[in-house]
Amino acid sequence: MTPQSVNERTTARIEAFSDGVFAIAITLLVLELHVPKPAELGSQSLWNMLVADWPSYFGFVLSFFTILIMWFNHHKLFTYIHHSDRVLPYANGLLLFFITLTPWPTALMAEYIGQTEERTAVEVFAGFFVLMALAFNFLWRYASHHGRLLGQDVDQEVVDRISRQYLLGPTGYGVAFILSFFTTTGCLSVSMVLAIFFAFTGASVRGIGEKVRRNKTQNA
Amino acid sequence: MTPQSVNERTTARIEAFSDGVFAIAITLLVLELHVPKPAELGSQSLWNMLVADWPSYFGFVLSFFTILIMWFNHHKLFTYIHHSDRVLPYANGLLLFFITLTPWPTALMAEYIGQTEERTAVEVFAGFFVLMALAFNFLWRYASHHGRLLGQDVDQEVVDRISRQYLLGPTGYGVAFILSFFTTTGCLSVSMVLAIFFAFTGASVRGIGEKVRRNKTQNA
Amino acid sequence: MTPQSVNERTTARIEAFSDGVFAIAITLLVLELHVPKPAELGSQSLWNMLVADWPSYFGFVLSFFTILIMWFNHHKLFTYIHHSDRVLPYANGLLLFFITLTPWPTALMAEYIGQTEERTAVEVFAGFFVLMALAFNFLWRYASHHGRLLGQDVDQEVVDRISRQYLLGPTGYGVAFILSFFTTTGCLSVSMVLAIFFAFTGASVRGIGEKVRRNKTQNA
Amino acid sequence: MTPQSVNERTTARIEAFSDGVFAIAITLLVLELHVPKPAELGSQSLWNMLVADWPSYFGFVLSFFTILIMWFNHHKLFTYIHHSDRVLPYANGLLLFFITLTPWPTALMAEYIGQTEERTAVEVFAGFFVLMALAFNFLWRYASHHGRLLGQDVDQEVVDRISRQYLLGPTGYGVAFILSFFTTTGCLSVSMVLAIFFAFTGASVRGIGEKVRRNKTQNA
Repeated sequence: MTPQSVNERTTARIEAFSDGVFAIAITLLVLELHVPKPAELGSQSLWNMLVADWPSYFGFVLSFFTILIMWFNHHKLFTYIHHSDRVLPYANGLLLFFITLTPWPTALMAEYIGQTEERTAVEVFAGFFVLMALAFNFLWRYASHHGRLLGQDVDQEVVDRISRQYLLGPTGYGVAFILSFFTTTGCLSVSMVLAIFFAFTGASVRGIGEKVRRNKTQNA
Repeated sequence: MTPQSVNERTTARIEAFSDGVFAIAITLLVLELHVPKPAELGSQSLWNMLVADWPSYFGFVLSFFTILIMWFNHHKLFTYIHHSDRVLPYANGLLLFFITLTPWPTALMAEYIGQTEERTAVEVFAGFFVLMALAFNFLWRYASHHGRLLGQDVDQEVVDRISRQYLLGPTGYGVAFILSFFTTTGCLSVSMVLAIFFAFTGASVRGIGEKVRRNKTQNA
Repeated sequence: MTPQSVNERTTARIEAFSDGVFAIAITLLVLELHVPKPAELGSQSLWNMLVADWPSYFGFVLSFFTILIMWFNHHKLFTYIHHSDRVLPYANGLLLFFITLTPWPTALMAEYIGQTEERTAVEVFAGFFVLMALAFNFLWRYASHHGRLLGQDVDQEVVDRISRQYLLGPTGYGVAFILSFFTTTGCLSVSMVLAIFFAFTGASVRGIGEKVRRNKTQNA
Repeated sequence: MTPQSVNERTTARIEAFSDGVFAIAITLLVLELHVPKPAELGSQSLWNMLVADWPSYFGFVLSFFTILIMWFNHHKLFTYIHHSDRVLPYANGLLLFFITLTPWPTALMAEYIGQTEERTAVEVFAGFFVLMALAFNFLWRYASHHGRLLGQDVDQEVVDRISRQYLLGPTGYGVAFILSFFTTTGCLSVSMVLAIFFAFTGASVRGIGEKVRRNKTQNA
């Protein structure tokens, strides 16, 4: 076993461990959905009670697709990261820290929307995503700096494109954070647009095709 | 690594991630089972208390085998789906959304069976399975449309048979949903029959045998 | 891909899915451990409060090692089971049903030990393990009947030895169940002895060595 | 399949199972974070309520990184352990027992910091880590004794270095345990230093490089 293959085995295990964390985090969300007991209904109909509970369903949907999108982006990064060192497991661990934490700010936001303390909850929610975006950037920038932990055949253009895309994270969520002090709708709209952007770019496999074409040209 | 192998790696990771979600969703169900505290018993015997709690055991059994059957059907589909693109991870994610949500409508139904609000709970339960069946169909139809993401050696007859079988999902659960407005027994009976049908066809490996035979003939 | 390799892939996925369920079931147990709030202490010291809570620690330890032993036995069976069919996923699913349920009868027993309703709780606990043992036997007997789903190179003597060992399950736990109507100590002692027996035989790899020796002789 | 490959398959499955347990344990932690209901706030602002809840965030962060560091150390050990026997699954199971338990003493400590019963909570917390360190040592010493379960190409110097490093566990946490009877700050400081030490050595891949160099020399 060469040191490189040990590193690749480590990367594979980091990926598998991360996948486990993503899968669990996304599945635990359902535990926050409440089934009202008959005694809680009082004079309300069950239907009205469920409708009144919409913020928790909204929070559930939001957390679910947020984690899903982050999972796909994480997977994309590890298509390029092929090696590990002393730092990578902890850079990745820091990101996982925020992933597992996701249900908490989301539930907080869902709980306080339309309440007097809405402002604080939305600020915490938006601030959380700034930190998450920073963790994603740290992981990627650490691994891709001078190609440190990337596969040998990774195209620099692709790396640069991802770096540019990821820069949008802290910037965009920074804007959403500033907006959170003034307007919930504005903050959530920006967050939603960012989520859709990362959903779209995260699922992109265009870069991979280019990389392979380029390699073919080099080998020819 | 050819683009195809990258896609297959993505498909494998989608499958592994989905398996994780299925495994967690099915195991979390036990958290909804209640162990009555001695103080809760009052003058009742523990045995009577446990018997009176039958709807939650019923809900547990129902959710468990529903998720198990869906897991096997999911596995079956990915026996044929060998490639991924920008859409597949999200089509699959939408299905997982409903999988992780399963305990909630089931618990709701179990909670309100025999209660005044039974009608609403059964409607929500049945409506949920219509959406689940639609998500299953969307995933399969997207992947199998003109063989878009299927393996090269997949037999068109098998694809058509699965497409026909899966059409029964939204149709059958649609009927169960309409019935849910009038009769709980009728609605649950239809749901049960559908579950048994998908349990049976989901575990079928006949199609695979046929596919292989056909390939052999072509290669001969 | 031959039908056989498809089956082996299915068996591998059943194993991976089961491993997930075991890992989650064993980790969820900690959720039942209670951290007393300062306000709950009253005039008690924290230490006394923790000591008084011993049945839940006992239940935790018991559930943990029970699931661990069952995991290892499950792994052992799948060292021999190499093929799948329409029934195996559901025979395995039935076993997983009991695995995921394990924390519930254990918590019940732990809750009522030393309480007036101890008898009922111990009966439910012991009855549960009879069903679990039956599910294990059904899985193994179905798979091993005329070597139906076993690997080609599996030694019949090893199969027969496992079948004999597993017969001890329903018999032994049947005895524990009968004892549960009269004596908690007797019932738990028999259960403990059975657990140790299966811990010991589950981790045995002797059979595999013999199998390999025999194969070598045949090939020579 | 030779007995060795069966053993390696067992080791791989032990590793995968352990990874699952680590991933779940680390993700379950979020369930202990509390989202205050609007009704709980009273005259407090949400922000003050969240700030007052700092011990649970502290406990979350502490548990998360503790499990992460232990995961990496576990992974490191299994880079060297290539075989299994009757004992290894249970030695590993004992370690997993403490891993899954981690959130409990951490939550206890977080709950009682600054309360009258702080002393007891910190003692339990520190005592727990002594047991955890012993379990880690037992696993490693059992597997590495006369190279019992290690890969053939493992360098004795590396083994000895790890054994020395791991000896620091029970010693260091033993000191922290003694300190826990007198000073919370002292106890937690020592624990923190130990965590950083194991974070650093756990992520080390130096030993692997040396091993490979030495093998190359031997083959040359």
